[in-house]
Amino acid sequence: MSKNLGLTPRSESYSEWYNDLIQKAELADYSPVRGCMVIRPNGYAIWENMQRHLDDMFKATGHVNAYFPLLIPKSFLSREAEHVEGFAKECAIVTHHRLMNDPDGKGVVVDPEAKLEEELVIRPTSETIIWHSYAKWIQSYRDLPILINQWANVMRWELRTRLFLRTAEFLWQEGHTAHATWEEAEAETMQMVRVYQKFAEEFMGVAVLVGKKSEGEKFAGADHTYCIEALTQDLRCVQAGTSHHLGQNFAKAFDVQFQSQEGKLEYVYATSWGVSTRLIGTLVMAHSDDKGLVVPPRLAATQVAIVPIGRDDAARAATYPVSEQLAEELRELGYRGLPVRVRVDKREKETPGFKFNDWEMKGACIRVEVGPRDLEAGQLIVARRDTGEKVTIPLAGAAQAILEQLEAMQTALLEKNRALREANTHRLDRWEDFVRHFEGEGGAGFVLAHWDGTSETESKISEATKATIRCIPFEPLHPDDELPGRCVFSGEPSARRVVFAKAY
Amino acid sequence: MSKNLGLTPRSESYSEWYNDLIQKAELADYSPVRGCMVIRPNGYAIWENMQRHLDDMFKATGHVNAYFPLLIPKSFLSREAEHVEGFAKECAIVTHHRLMNDPDGKGVVVDPEAKLEEELVIRPTSETIIWHSYAKWIQSYRDLPILINQWANVMRWELRTRLFLRTAEFLWQEGHTAHATWEEAEAETMQMVRVYQKFAEEFMGVAVLVGKKSEGEKFAGADHTYCIEALTQDLRCVQAGTSHHLGQNFAKAFDVQFQSQEGKLEYVYATSWGVSTRLIGTLVMAHSDDKGLVVPPRLAATQVAIVPIGRDDAARAATYPVSEQLAEELRELGYRGLPVRVRVDKREKETPGFKFNDWEMKGACIRVEVGPRDLEAGQLIVARRDTGEKVTIPLAGAAQAILEQLEAMQTALLEKNRALREANTHRLDRWEDFVRHFEGEGGAGFVLAHWDGTSETESKISEATKATIRCIPFEPLHPDDELPGRCVFSGEPSARRVVFAKAY
Repeated sequence: MSKNLGLTPRSESYSEWYNDLIQKAELADYSPVRGCMVIRPNGYAIWENMQRHLDDMFKATGHVNAYFPLLIPKSFLSREAEHVEGFAKECAIVTHHRLMNDPDGKGVVVDPEAKLEEELVIRPTSETIIWHSYAKWIQSYRDLPILINQWANVMRWELRTRLFLRTAEFLWQEGHTAHATWEEAEAETMQMVRVYQKFAEEFMGVAVLVGKKSEGEKFAGADHTYCIEALTQDLRCVQAGTSHHLGQNFAKAFDVQFQSQEGKLEYVYATSWGVSTRLIGTLVMAHSDDKGLVVPPRLAATQVAIVPIGRDDAARAATYPVSEQLAEELRELGYRGLPVRVRVDKREKETPGFKFNDWEMKGACIRVEVGPRDLEAGQLIVARRDTGEKVTIPLAGAAQAILEQLEAMQTALLEKNRALREANTHRLDRWEDFVRHFEGEGGAGFVLAHWDGTSETESKISEATKATIRCIPFEPLHPDDELPGRCVFSGEPSARRVVFAKAY
Repeated sequence: MSKNLGLTPRSESYSEWYNDLIQKAELADYSPVRGCMVIRPNGYAIWENMQRHLDDMFKATGHVNAYFPLLIPKSFLSREAEHVEGFAKECAIVTHHRLMNDPDGKGVVVDPEAKLEEELVIRPTSETIIWHSYAKWIQSYRDLPILINQWANVMRWELRTRLFLRTAEFLWQEGHTAHATWEEAEAETMQMVRVYQKFAEEFMGVAVLVGKKSEGEKFAGADHTYCIEALTQDLRCVQAGTSHHLGQNFAKAFDVQFQSQEGKLEYVYATSWGVSTRLIGTLVMAHSDDKGLVVPPRLAATQVAIVPIGRDDAARAATYPVSEQLAEELRELGYRGLPVRVRVDKREKETPGFKFNDWEMKGACIRVEVGPRDLEAGQLIVARRDTGEKVTIPLAGAAQAILEQLEAMQTALLEKNRALREANTHRLDRWEDFVRHFEGEGGAGFVLAHWDGTSETESKISEATKATIRCIPFEPLHPDDELPGRCVFSGEPSARRVVFAKAY
């Protein structure tokens, strides 16, 4: 108990472990508003790192940022038929614009005189309000493409919530682009899901599957949806990012036509794509352990924690200059082009043991112990968060050695997650095997199975097993996955295997 | 008309000029929701630059970022008596969480079954929801100080709105800190208003006044408020940033006590401080002209616009390599530690004249003209946005010369705004003069006058003249300003002169 600072072990209850960790690593906290969370500094720092790198990738692919209103007139949501079905139902609705002192006593009440003519909905996603603007901005092919991204909060009134993974309010980015042709919109949709894949692999250390959603799982209002799907340690799947080809659906709903180079009036093609603070939950689920948070160095709030050690205050303080110098050297050398995020832990009232546990809980990638005896011997102790491995390294060249450890950890996490996925991807052809495989409460990895392509079968499989089609992968995990076969449920012909899993 | 692309001249109507400019420079647009704006990419880029530099300054002073919920339970707002008076009245109120298909026909209506038990308010500011969390996080002096900042959207149901300067929804940052002592909170309050001053001067090129608000103008719930106040070209004042010492008011309202080092239970001291997208409006009002947007280089979306010129497509294209090379050189050299934000304007269907006007409208700081004849002569033409000055410079060393022009413009804008303030700061001692000075619709600069220190007099002066007390300056503009005198309105004794102006 004291050793792990009170985290429920994963083997006991993965779900309690997750909730414990989010709180004890001070990533997030519950709030007085149902389903909404407080993102604490240690969690928000991860989001800031994600934002920075994603934003760089968006800008490198020609996008610019903008900001559209939080509130959407209720009638906008009903303009696109599928969209309203998908989003208008559970959402926060603003009906009044004034409070007044309660005539019967203390406090304030809603002023009935201040009722809005048309109710406003807090955006669950911004297609409608954005396409209302695009209608004003787009007249001719010269106004295209529009390549806009927005960083914003959105709200969906979820019934069952879980910190980061499913909350009523969450932070995200939503790209909304407008194009002259179907092909150009398609290239954009594909480009952005590949940006997400690259981000998941190279920054998050998560070996996502990339593919297309089935009709049943696509975005409400899209022609088709591409996605990245991650595997967690409890063998469930997290939909980590989506990229939608919206065809001309929103252009038609908001009457957005442009004059083409040939002088014809045509409807504009659209895409939208997004990732959210859900990525933080995905990270935790993918890498953390019973001691606390494990975050890949490129996204970690603290990459290196230096803990000065000594018998007493004076002995400890004697190690401060070396500690500070190492920190400064790391900042100057930098990791992957940015100053190393390094902290020297000078807290006076805490023991080294407490500090070790604390930095393990909070996800520092590398811990450096600086003690007087080691210093005399010209060495330092370095511990890596993911493996727990402790090594003694020479003080000379320590900064460079630490950078190498950061890079090794970044690579190792991706490899470990890839190995997890490979060990937990199965091919099942008999319905009994499929059902048995998904029995019980827990996750069961990815199952590649044949499917007849109908929404009816998709629903029946999901009702019977709680497993859903996560995607039709772009790259087969094995070449045979793209050979035809018979649907695992109906026995009807199937063009290829698709990926099933239980999802968060 | 064509020359200025349709901007109403400032001399004709400052207010129409402002609205024209915001739209034609594509900074912002109106939205279908009353009082809410769309911040377009050319405006949002300025906000991103502001965010980046402010965030660096916050972090350099020890702050971290976090995120708290958008929605606040109605009852929270009434916990602090002054706060509820100031903020609870005009705000957006969420009463329901579900829409349903209209039983009578098309569209959707609010589902009456989905009424919330307690209404939620979209945050007008976050003191209450944040101090609810701090109550959970603070037990002992070891948990202090908390130095948190939040970047967020907020909403106040304003009746009269103006893009950027006063909108129902706006973007801002709000710092919320918790301290063990009054003195420490005071030091924080002062530190942050000085950070804002530095930002206004060094980045925005605006020579703000810094001082303390009167009781009548302070934040609802604060012990006292410090502020920065900017002067615009039409001689009005904009409150550009505020920093509040909240005393123990919110700690008492949310029962946040900590165990001191001496083992006593004490209430925590608080500060809050913020600046918003209002700063963009302030920038426009301070520097722009009848040709369009003028932005100081450190915040400009485009610092350098390179316009290749030629008799025909081939001649123009021949200048592309030099243009691109110059752009690359500028990016590599950097301005003030960041890659220069430079664009090469290769639009094919537009004339050079159109492009010149367009970049002037959109606020590029430096325009570079690259023509075949000049290239043969080994030279370029460079035009500075603020002065309109056009000079011919040698191609060799052009990048360095352009950087010097950027720096010269950054400095010149601050000097110009400071000169404007100095030329429009008056000292008035007779009530008739004071009244006459503020007659008419327009602004009238700053007036330093004596005031008896009472809220009653403050209200009467404001009713009679529409001028309000902007601040009691920390640094007197003239040493005599701190000498005692007689109130300009009541004739009662006054300790020193204070600053009056008509404000946006």
